[in-house]
Amino acid sequence: MAGLTLDISMSLDGFVAGPNQTLDQPLGEGGERLHDWALALKSFREMHGRPGGETNVDDDIVAETLGRTGATVMGRRMFSGGKGEWKHDPNADGWWGKDPPFHHPVFILTHHAREPVIKQGGTTFTFVTDGIESALEQARAAAGDKDVAVGGGATVAQQYLMAGLLDGLQIHVVPVLLGDGVRLFENHLGDGQAELERTGAIESPTGVTHLQYRVLK
Amino acid sequence: MAGLTLDISMSLDGFVAGPNQTLDQPLGEGGERLHDWALALKSFREMHGRPGGETNVDDDIVAETLGRTGATVMGRRMFSGGKGEWKHDPNADGWWGKDPPFHHPVFILTHHAREPVIKQGGTTFTFVTDGIESALEQARAAAGDKDVAVGGGATVAQQYLMAGLLDGLQIHVVPVLLGDGVRLFENHLGDGQAELERTGAIESPTGVTHLQYRVLK
Repeated sequence: MAGLTLDISMSLDGFVAGPNQTLDQPLGEGGERLHDWALALKSFREMHGRPGGETNVDDDIVAETLGRTGATVMGRRMFSGGKGEWKHDPNADGWWGKDPPFHHPVFILTHHAREPVIKQGGTTFTFVTDGIESALEQARAAAGDKDVAVGGGATVAQQYLMAGLLDGLQIHVVPVLLGDGVRLFENHLGDGQAELERTGAIESPTGVTHLQYRVLK
Repeated sequence: MAGLTLDISMSLDGFVAGPNQTLDQPLGEGGERLHDWALALKSFREMHGRPGGETNVDDDIVAETLGRTGATVMGRRMFSGGKGEWKHDPNADGWWGKDPPFHHPVFILTHHAREPVIKQGGTTFTFVTDGIESALEQARAAAGDKDVAVGGGATVAQQYLMAGLLDGLQIHVVPVLLGDGVRLFENHLGDGQAELERTGAIESPTGVTHLQYRVLK
């Protein structure tokens, strides 16, 4: 069965978004600095339909991650690009545009049932109202023999981790201290403690360290 | 002038001690797991007056860190080995024993003035009641051209970081999730955000990743 992996950028002090998130600033103050390392990469640009870009160890990691990912689960806030409810016309393109960067089926955890949306480039958005296990099951069926990625945000990542459903973590540790914001690892995860096996630690030319772990069960 | 560096073991979820610290369990529940990687190393055993031990990349890092450290500053709780006040007879050996593992001058931040204590093997304990800058100044004078280490705990590390006095961080990221405990990086550090330059990321055979940063000022 395909694995469930979390792939996320985190500041050294543990934040995946800065403080004061708004619809205009969904990553919070300073939060965009967590993603700067990826923006110029060939594989990242390709996801977004843009030519060119850098090829280096960062790009290898992003390309490898994209290549083995067949479906994504994400929270409603990440889908709608902010803290507010999803207020857009269901037929409009919304936060992720006409041609979202996923290029595979995406399952969105929400309390609001909604018809699926089929976008250009292979992305579909399916809205799941009956919990994280149902979303995972649907995503696994859609992913075939590829992995399922937890796209975020932090709350959804924590839910999967607490439920013991995550198989792997890939954390891009960005050399910055945000001081405040949204933590990836809030206190009281599950029944306390979890054991990991580190499978890789890769230095990048941008100062990011890519930490890879398998969750031991 | 000698640099001020923080050298500390941290769980992937950001804790430097587990929950429920007591005098009998000063590292809290599960906290000793953060230090397991170091216990068998040659350089660590040597610090504690024991022969033998493993030599590997972990040992190289510990030996290098010890070699460039000429003095340590630490908090009272770390000195007294728990959350309680220092209740021991000043002439007794206390938490760190007759021959403490530092083998250099140690400066303890406290509100309680006390005469210095001279131990075997080059360790002296000097009690500083007038704040972190005074402790640093005294430690720098004692260290000569070597570095000063912030020995911990987390509160003292945060005070030096918030004051902009730290020059370097070496964080040993241990592949474990503690779920709760004492965070190295609490929210609202200083006036928010700090920039770091990663100077090293070293994989260890034990699954620990040694992340090294210079604090940019």
